Amino acid sequence: MHLTRFVDPHGRLRYGKDRGDGTAELLADSAFPDPQSLTGEVVEIAQRRAPIAPPNIFCIGLNYREHATETGAPIPERPVIFMKPTTTLCDPGSPVVIPASQMKGPEVDSEAELGIVMGTKDGQPAKDVSEADALDYVLGYTCGSDISARRWQKQGGGGQWVRGKGFDSFCPLGPVIVTQGEGDGDIADPQQLSITGKLNDTVMQSSHTSDMIFSVAEIVAFLSRDTTLLPGTLILTGTPPGVGFVREPAVWVMPGDELTVEIEKIGTLRNPVVQA
Amino acid sequence: MHLTRFVDPHGRLRYGKDRGDGTAELLADSAFPDPQSLTGEVVEIAQRRAPIAPPNIFCIGLNYREHATETGAPIPERPVIFMKPTTTLCDPGSPVVIPASQMKGPEVDSEAELGIVMGTKDGQPAKDVSEADALDYVLGYTCGSDISARRWQKQGGGGQWVRGKGFDSFCPLGPVIVTQGEGDGDIADPQQLSITGKLNDTVMQSSHTSDMIFSVAEIVAFLSRDTTLLPGTLILTGTPPGVGFVREPAVWVMPGDELTVEIEKIGTLRNPVVQA
Repeated sequence: MHLTRFVDPHGRLRYGKDRGDGTAELLADSAFPDPQSLTGEVVEIAQRRAPIAPPNIFCIGLNYREHATETGAPIPERPVIFMKPTTTLCDPGSPVVIPASQMKGPEVDSEAELGIVMGTKDGQPAKDVSEADALDYVLGYTCGSDISARRWQKQGGGGQWVRGKGFDSFCPLGPVIVTQGEGDGDIADPQQLSITGKLNDTVMQSSHTSDMIFSVAEIVAFLSRDTTLLPGTLILTGTPPGVGFVREPAVWVMPGDELTVEIEKIGTLRNPVVQA
Repeated sequence: MHLTRFVDPHGRLRYGKDRGDGTAELLADSAFPDPQSLTGEVVEIAQRRAPIAPPNIFCIGLNYREHATETGAPIPERPVIFMKPTTTLCDPGSPVVIPASQMKGPEVDSEAELGIVMGTKDGQPAKDVSEADALDYVLGYTCGSDISARRWQKQGGGGQWVRGKGFDSFCPLGPVIVTQGEGDGDIADPQQLSITGKLNDTVMQSSHTSDMIFSVAEIVAFLSRDTTLLPGTLILTGTPPGVGFVREPAVWVMPGDELTVEIEKIGTLRNPVVQA
């Protein structure tokens, strides 16, 4: 099922099943979307929103072998974990805003990523779940981008990445969540998806989730150790090779550009880029 | 004013002005406490909660010169920024839970810290605020502890600290928020507070917020650059020298211990320690 979070023609924020024709079948009103709660009522999608408002955003660094290699980093033995503040969230079609402080010398890069949206199992959030059980706690998957200001990432936070990856609008997300499952239109295996990142018409990243070092199940199990992954928690699973800062010459995201993340079975997330 | 978040005798979560005698004067019901909204109604504090439920928790690393030195880290040129997930929050008096995975060889350490709780100015959250204006956006201050699993911090997250500092209950907070301001019982200057961290009866950390490398105003200005600090955002401002892992022999937090953070004008935060 394709889950959408959207503003209806009356200005109300809703969850629904995306029907693919600009309309959605509403889910029962709830802070968290329950795919089982279809109401039968169909309404127009007036404005699409990031498909979830996550309580926490975790990110995995260097999770594609070739991306680790291109950055000169060693292949990690355990998932590299960092966070983005929830204020980074950026709706489909909404502008990624390049801070004025980052225009003197360009430094902004984008990282196409598969996003995991956590759900519950038997009403319980994930905590201390095994790899074998991990996918049962996943609501579904979406497209995301881990926008990164490289100088701030490397020099602006004492080796910690949060500052350089934490500016407003630095986490485009959407357009929909495709539910984990075996049904038609679900995603049964998140390691069998092609993923593409584009800057305007140029394909920057073209890879496949089977190339992840740590699988979705391994990531969820690792993050859930002694840690509650609340419903709606977003986990960005790392980016494949091809980012801008490692190129010769480097390629930077600039005002006027358009960013695209496309993932098989999920769809296409597009965001224009503007200056603050 | 001392702001408290608590459960009343009817089981309802409330905000109030702590009267220091086990009762509180209620503030108007709101998702965020407004010190101007006193209602006159006084109720019993049945159970104290962490004084805020933050949308994001930012932390500053190595912000006391002697602590940077004791860990062997260089004095940072800019604030070192990392985050804790909101699921780390731990109420006053509630147990800090040591994960089973961290009992094989002990590795858990505590870091007493002054916590900044962000508010608004003229109804606006802090974004791109100057150092001169920064304190106008601060609601107040509280005691916190940045509980840290040192092996996980150093080896479990690829150099990023989130995993080792992100386990459930790893952010004790409270007992109250003392408001920023010039009034009686307010805090006018957050750089004029003594801070003490204790493990059972042993004083581990004894310092003063005047020793911070980056002041509260500098931290808020730095974090707010192109970034919205939503009302309720918690910023832990770094820990003074004396943490357990740098001692010879190292001192670890163990089940049965009691952790105490005491900050001048705010009060004392106490948490027992248990095993998962």
